[in-house]
Amino acid sequence: MSQFVIGIDLGGTNLKTALVDQDGRIVVHDSRPTDADAGPEVIMEAMVAAAETVITEAGVPKTQVLTVGIGVPGPMNWQTGVVFSPPNLKGWKDVPLAEEMTKRLGMPVFVDNDANVACYGEFWSGAGKGCDTMVMMTLGTGVGGGIVVHGKLLRGIDGTAAEVGHMQLMRDGRKHPFGFTGTLEAYASVTGLVRTAREAIEGGRTSILTERCGGDLDALTGKMISEAIAEGDEVAAWAMRETGTWLGLASASLINLLNPEKIVFGGGMIAAGDILFDTIRETAKKQSFEVPFKRCIIEKAALGEDAGVIGAAGCAWERFQAEQPS
Amino acid sequence: MSQFVIGIDLGGTNLKTALVDQDGRIVVHDSRPTDADAGPEVIMEAMVAAAETVITEAGVPKTQVLTVGIGVPGPMNWQTGVVFSPPNLKGWKDVPLAEEMTKRLGMPVFVDNDANVACYGEFWSGAGKGCDTMVMMTLGTGVGGGIVVHGKLLRGIDGTAAEVGHMQLMRDGRKHPFGFTGTLEAYASVTGLVRTAREAIEGGRTSILTERCGGDLDALTGKMISEAIAEGDEVAAWAMRETGTWLGLASASLINLLNPEKIVFGGGMIAAGDILFDTIRETAKKQSFEVPFKRCIIEKAALGEDAGVIGAAGCAWERFQAEQPS
Repeated sequence: MSQFVIGIDLGGTNLKTALVDQDGRIVVHDSRPTDADAGPEVIMEAMVAAAETVITEAGVPKTQVLTVGIGVPGPMNWQTGVVFSPPNLKGWKDVPLAEEMTKRLGMPVFVDNDANVACYGEFWSGAGKGCDTMVMMTLGTGVGGGIVVHGKLLRGIDGTAAEVGHMQLMRDGRKHPFGFTGTLEAYASVTGLVRTAREAIEGGRTSILTERCGGDLDALTGKMISEAIAEGDEVAAWAMRETGTWLGLASASLINLLNPEKIVFGGGMIAAGDILFDTIRETAKKQSFEVPFKRCIIEKAALGEDAGVIGAAGCAWERFQAEQPS
Repeated sequence: MSQFVIGIDLGGTNLKTALVDQDGRIVVHDSRPTDADAGPEVIMEAMVAAAETVITEAGVPKTQVLTVGIGVPGPMNWQTGVVFSPPNLKGWKDVPLAEEMTKRLGMPVFVDNDANVACYGEFWSGAGKGCDTMVMMTLGTGVGGGIVVHGKLLRGIDGTAAEVGHMQLMRDGRKHPFGFTGTLEAYASVTGLVRTAREAIEGGRTSILTERCGGDLDALTGKMISEAIAEGDEVAAWAMRETGTWLGLASASLINLLNPEKIVFGGGMIAAGDILFDTIRETAKKQSFEVPFKRCIIEKAALGEDAGVIGAAGCAWERFQAEQPS
């Protein structure tokens, strides 16, 4: 009889839940708004309800559901499942999420970092399927990262590894809100892209972006830049290529360091397509060794927004199996 | 009865060989000049002779020696043991070194990259003993690198991983002979240190180095810089701190990426001591997350020039065990 796993993607806006089969395919999906201000108790109840909903809708006996994985933003202890204080969720402080949810659901629950989980999802059943070693970068407000080495998530001894967004690319470069300077995230997140375009306009370059944001550069968004590229705006296109250059430099470092089979990019920005990916590849080619560059496929993630639920399910599945007596 | 492993460090200048016990301690050591121009046949015979010498000198029955590991510079296929064309050894072209040496020695021989091998040596019985995840950088003409993740060497699918010296640290930065720009090696190798001091002098700074190299900046060496630091020369000290800054930036990236327990530095330059290591630590602290920075001990390698033979023995030992039927 088939067995299933539940993956939960706990975001600040939406709580997504899916019943996933052993091949990493979604059987039933549930999405509901996260009541981010309500505190852990209410959100945990919502997670229980969502998990029960997907089981019921799938018509699967609960005994066939082996485990539940939750992808959570922000710092945590993935081994104990204690979530420290997610920046997007109010009233959370050292919540023993895995333990509490295990009690409530009556099955083992595992907690992991959301960026790691998304990477594992792509590794398990997305763009990285069949890889031994891969990297994923998610381009959003920040640059999230995940690394799989020899078929396993690289979590690090404290669970803080794979912070790809905080690689150094430019000594004394652009300042990041965290206090670091010259890191990938400062340049190649959506926030970084917007800043790059803004600085060009402030430096005197002419762009339709000025009009699009109503003359208020504080109102400039990544979406406006994408639209301006489609309309042939040169500054917008240049800002996107700049972003691709920074991502290419980071990719070169990762190719030289890890010799991965794939580097996969997710997040809304990947819709930019060739202008972004051609620049990433060209830059990485110039700055990495030939053998590992040729080995490494640089491409879009395949699972889109489902990477979170599928990856959370996959991580839980792997950890559940590892805990079984052999 | 005790069992032993032989490690061979095949350098362009010296061929070092050691009989090593199961705890990674050298029992007997042999060193002889490498006849780098003589071609593979002569060098392989020298390796056989050296291996037999250490066995005989140790008074150990050959049946108690399980395997031999060879650390080799330059590109190779570590899985098949074929060495492509080491830049420092003449007449080597696709030499099936592992296979040939296995025949000649009558026991399994494994071949690995010399920088990886040195890292494994420190991991097995040096500064990284007891670590799960560590990085080693060897500061010489270049910057060699090795990475151990979850107790295993990170070799990569093509065996090209751990090229720590070729991490990007400065977009459009200093050009490296390989064609890359702004990489760690361009700044923080001994070659890079010399260039930093030289550029300062050419830029008009006054230093006793000008006198030490007889007014010929082409003759400037790392040793002259070390001596000038000891004599209180400010430009020399500044150049060493610059080198430490670049190494600190690379360390920050590695801390954010890998969450390692240690980053260990080897090579002649580490004799500079505090002026180098204080700068590395201060820079890494500013540019990495608090939890993984606190976790990571940044220190000198412990084995010195023995890291190569011990690591070659350790790699062979691990690979030999992995091949045994369980």
